Amino acid sequence: MDFKQQLLQQSAEAKEIFLPHISADPVIFGFEHNELKVLLLKTNYRQKWLLPGGYVKKDEDLDEAVKRILKERTGVADIYLEEFGVFGRKNRSESYFEDFDETLFQKQRFISVGYYALYNPSMLNIIPDQYSETCEWIFLSKLQEIELAMDHREIIEKALLILRQKIAAIPIGRNLLPEKFTLPELQKLYEAVLGKELNRGNFYTKMKTLGILKKLEEQRRGGAHKAPDLYSFDEENYIKALNNGLNSW
Amino acid sequence: MDFKQQLLQQSAEAKEIFLPHISADPVIFGFEHNELKVLLLKTNYRQKWLLPGGYVKKDEDLDEAVKRILKERTGVADIYLEEFGVFGRKNRSESYFEDFDETLFQKQRFISVGYYALYNPSMLNIIPDQYSETCEWIFLSKLQEIELAMDHREIIEKALLILRQKIAAIPIGRNLLPEKFTLPELQKLYEAVLGKELNRGNFYTKMKTLGILKKLEEQRRGGAHKAPDLYSFDEENYIKALNNGLNSW
Repeated sequence: MDFKQQLLQQSAEAKEIFLPHISADPVIFGFEHNELKVLLLKTNYRQKWLLPGGYVKKDEDLDEAVKRILKERTGVADIYLEEFGVFGRKNRSESYFEDFDETLFQKQRFISVGYYALYNPSMLNIIPDQYSETCEWIFLSKLQEIELAMDHREIIEKALLILRQKIAAIPIGRNLLPEKFTLPELQKLYEAVLGKELNRGNFYTKMKTLGILKKLEEQRRGGAHKAPDLYSFDEENYIKALNNGLNSW
Repeated sequence: MDFKQQLLQQSAEAKEIFLPHISADPVIFGFEHNELKVLLLKTNYRQKWLLPGGYVKKDEDLDEAVKRILKERTGVADIYLEEFGVFGRKNRSESYFEDFDETLFQKQRFISVGYYALYNPSMLNIIPDQYSETCEWIFLSKLQEIELAMDHREIIEKALLILRQKIAAIPIGRNLLPEKFTLPELQKLYEAVLGKELNRGNFYTKMKTLGILKKLEEQRRGGAHKAPDLYSFDEENYIKALNNGLNSW
């Protein structure tokens, strides 16, 4: 079936099943090789990259919808997604379907709810859906080199901004680092999210005062250098900090 | 005109003007007499209290819509509103219009985008709209005593939760306190938002280390006690902390 035919068929089905005007876009960040990346689809139609978003069923809660959408489009299931922003500018997405007339379901005005999650890519098994040529992790440093559809670059940037604001207030790392990790590894994660280098001494001092780390008795073996100290998260304090914030009054 | 007649007329007009399925609800917090309050309407129809929410015009950005809605329903203009959550559970609002059949615009499923703001009530001039008997500030401590429509209690609680998380990360007070204020006054504001008493010594120490306060040369006059020190916000550092967070890495 040709790609336009496929979208016309999707449109006919969508009118039965989905609410008009509302969509949801998951921004899944991965951390690997000391860099952040984001999970994107490359569409068959128009060969552009976009977030694995979709529509909300008439009889489905919004929170359920975004999980179903992510699963259907990328194969990724059982992820905790957090709403971070709503994208409601008029004409934000309509022109993407310029080859079609106004009766196409996908071409109407959509207000999109953005959700994000931060995961270790090696934990996730990726399968692209039928509308996509491929589903891939794209490093943030490579985003400038690809063509993103609609306002999806803006949605990714907003998600990253919110993530950066969040890590001043709550801990990160539990889904991203191995169970036992070194302080340099933790620092690399923070540097990847913040997009800047941090002073090692300041980072160690601040991290230790947060009370969410547990220094282990063992060191990491192997390597030419002095064996580095290993840490894990203090489960109880980590969860307390997630719920109450790191700097609560 | 009777209230049901009024809603039927609104429905006919709304179908022409507004997008279906999307609404916006502003949660305006005020701080007065050392307590937080929230701006609510009491509807003519059913005599329940609700947030001054409304619908999004077909040709209007979402961010514009919520400002227009707030102005039309309460008279409050020129407020900076921040999106804090989306309320998308099915059947969250439909039963409110139980006296009407499914053709009523207001009775369809709505996914509502919540916005909040924190202001000094004495700065705002309140005028209720035609669908409302009154528009009033209700103290949070009195919320349990009134009947709130739909899921609006949940929306207010979520807004308060987000506000509490935010004040660990960014400064508050500039729209709420007089230009010159005392540390006890600032502490009362934090206590009102957090809903708990704070240790005075810890609060003063922490506040001073944030670098957003400027101690003034003058003291407040009058009163039987020792004249208290006056402070104002250090404009430059306050804005920097708003943008980068108080505890940035």
